[in-house]
Amino acid sequence: MSGGERPDPSPSAAEEAAARAGLSAAVEPGDPVLGALLESRPASRVWTALRTGAPLEPPAGWTAAALRGRLERWRARAREVDPDLVLSRAGDQGIRLVVPGDPEWPSQLDTLAERRPHALWVRGAHDLRNACLRAVSVVGSRAASAYGLHVATEMSHTLAEHGWCVVSGGAYGIDGAAHRGALAGGAATVAVLACGVDMHYPRGHEQLFAEIAGHGVLVSEHPPGAAPNRHAFLVRNRLIAALTPGTVVVEAGRRSGAANTAAHAQELGRTLMAVPGPVTSALSVGCHRLLRDYQAVCVTCARDVIEQLSPVGAEPPGEERVRVGADLLDDTARRLLEALPERGSVGVAVAAAASGLTPDAALRRLGLLAAAGHVERAAAGWRRIPGSRTSRG
Amino acid sequence: MSGGERPDPSPSAAEEAAARAGLSAAVEPGDPVLGALLESRPASRVWTALRTGAPLEPPAGWTAAALRGRLERWRARAREVDPDLVLSRAGDQGIRLVVPGDPEWPSQLDTLAERRPHALWVRGAHDLRNACLRAVSVVGSRAASAYGLHVATEMSHTLAEHGWCVVSGGAYGIDGAAHRGALAGGAATVAVLACGVDMHYPRGHEQLFAEIAGHGVLVSEHPPGAAPNRHAFLVRNRLIAALTPGTVVVEAGRRSGAANTAAHAQELGRTLMAVPGPVTSALSVGCHRLLRDYQAVCVTCARDVIEQLSPVGAEPPGEERVRVGADLLDDTARRLLEALPERGSVGVAVAAAASGLTPDAALRRLGLLAAAGHVERAAAGWRRIPGSRTSRG
Repeated sequence: MSGGERPDPSPSAAEEAAARAGLSAAVEPGDPVLGALLESRPASRVWTALRTGAPLEPPAGWTAAALRGRLERWRARAREVDPDLVLSRAGDQGIRLVVPGDPEWPSQLDTLAERRPHALWVRGAHDLRNACLRAVSVVGSRAASAYGLHVATEMSHTLAEHGWCVVSGGAYGIDGAAHRGALAGGAATVAVLACGVDMHYPRGHEQLFAEIAGHGVLVSEHPPGAAPNRHAFLVRNRLIAALTPGTVVVEAGRRSGAANTAAHAQELGRTLMAVPGPVTSALSVGCHRLLRDYQAVCVTCARDVIEQLSPVGAEPPGEERVRVGADLLDDTARRLLEALPERGSVGVAVAAAASGLTPDAALRRLGLLAAAGHVERAAAGWRRIPGSRTSRG
Repeated sequence: MSGGERPDPSPSAAEEAAARAGLSAAVEPGDPVLGALLESRPASRVWTALRTGAPLEPPAGWTAAALRGRLERWRARAREVDPDLVLSRAGDQGIRLVVPGDPEWPSQLDTLAERRPHALWVRGAHDLRNACLRAVSVVGSRAASAYGLHVATEMSHTLAEHGWCVVSGGAYGIDGAAHRGALAGGAATVAVLACGVDMHYPRGHEQLFAEIAGHGVLVSEHPPGAAPNRHAFLVRNRLIAALTPGTVVVEAGRRSGAANTAAHAQELGRTLMAVPGPVTSALSVGCHRLLRDYQAVCVTCARDVIEQLSPVGAEPPGEERVRVGADLLDDTARRLLEALPERGSVGVAVAAAASGLTPDAALRRLGLLAAAGHVERAAAGWRRIPGSRTSRG
């Protein structure tokens, strides 16, 4: 820490969260200089420096000029942001803040290093970290063909049936088909947005976003109320790639944004997959280029995708259930699991009442149990997966 | 050479050709024991031993038992074959024999080692070796879809327009579309058959084979009159793969014979390419498996294919003309080239008369000049490629 910054007592978690809420409103997502600053300093110290004009030393690897150019912009914006107000308004809309170190923080994002999100704004019934324990990104063109929409829907539906969470970008076309297929398949789906999670952009997806909030998660680096812009879409794509071990491009034209997500996936060492299509279709040109020039794996169905993402030697899909031993569950999760009936499914409220948990707490634990392979979503609630009795049961 | 075989004076080329003609009728194509025998002995000595019952020592790497089991079968068949009669009947049908060492022998077949053809029976206006100087194999299912037929035709047409010879198997479906596209594109095409080149199998391709004989080559390891069988198709596939530096599988179902050709191509170190298709089509399943599990290169058009087969740094197709310098042409080829008009095209007979060659000799040289990038087939004969004047011209 530099001599120019005042030493503070260790900030509280609430102070850190408020500071990151403020930073998410004042600084562009993915800014690597802020990312580097936050690697060596509490967020509250950075935030205070922006608000008070106190000096900030450039972080390791960055010049004073790089920081200076940004500071002016950041300070101007920070003066207009009241973190407590942003947080309380978000809370009123059912939007929560998730920051590094929180139980819900998806730690796979840490591979983004300096470009790790400063904070995530999350809305929805599911726990983001749990949802992404077994997840795959499915992306593609907005202007999709009937073929692409069919493949995205079918693939995501089957992935969901096998307990995989589908992550996508909430856009028209392939993204929308991926989310809808996943919802119909009965699993959580995660929409990573380039605007506030309250913004309903694109407008035609308002109803879809409501369903995702009910059975999955909407997530964004932008605070509630933020409008989307072109740069935000590109920066957002790195999150889609980083949240999962693999990205499938279902359909992409010559200049599709999906190619950008694919590049992020490859750069992060994730498995890059592409769905082939007719060579006569302009909407498959991008996929074929990924196959030809970027060593993308050719996948034609959910089974191919699961095989690519499963450890070598794992059971083929259908048989395969990654299950955490019941003895490794914490007491609360175990109690909830025991409260579920042997047959049939129950809603969250019933499961909560039977286990003595609040509905919110029950829902979080159900997500965890699903990720651990003990329960799954059914059409009307949640059910045990056969053979999932606890050792105490 | 073993002490059990009588030392002969060196046999003449005609004796060797007759012996190989006999062997092609008495021994299965691709038999590796005969291939090994022929690596260390003149064909005439092997043929005489089969006909007279004289002893034959097993070739290096093979046991006496492996040879003994075959010899009985070979001798029984050899007794029924009169090589001179086979050759003269073939000649009457316009069918010629090509053996290793002949100017028309495609030496890229030598990479097949022990499984190199014992002899080739050839019918058609083009020189086999010249045709294959710049060639690519295009294969696929008999039961092709409209999509596959369209892609095979289009790709082969464009390949031919760029001076590439298309090699295929003469079957219904993709093979037929590949040959037809190549003929329409104005280049030679080579059909490698699993039966005699006079057999017109499949029957519905009689007219197509006549066109290929007129503007390309029909080739087979089987003597005239030989009927096809399942084994012959599989053995034939290795020739399609070996004749060219790359094989494109346009469409292939789960159990297509094209996968066999693809396996040969890969084993021989040739470039394996596959055309993607809709994942909803059963006829693209084989292509997608080649892309996913066999590192086939994804190609969507003739340009992709040419790029794969061209040296790194070569001009992109359209600009690209592999041309042998006119000063490297022999006198006869140079004389023929100079006899062609500056503009427009002429038939073989006119070109022959103008250059003082027989039509047969003129046709062979035209093939050579085309392979060298100086002339090309036009709708009505042959024409110079602009800029192809000889240094003497």
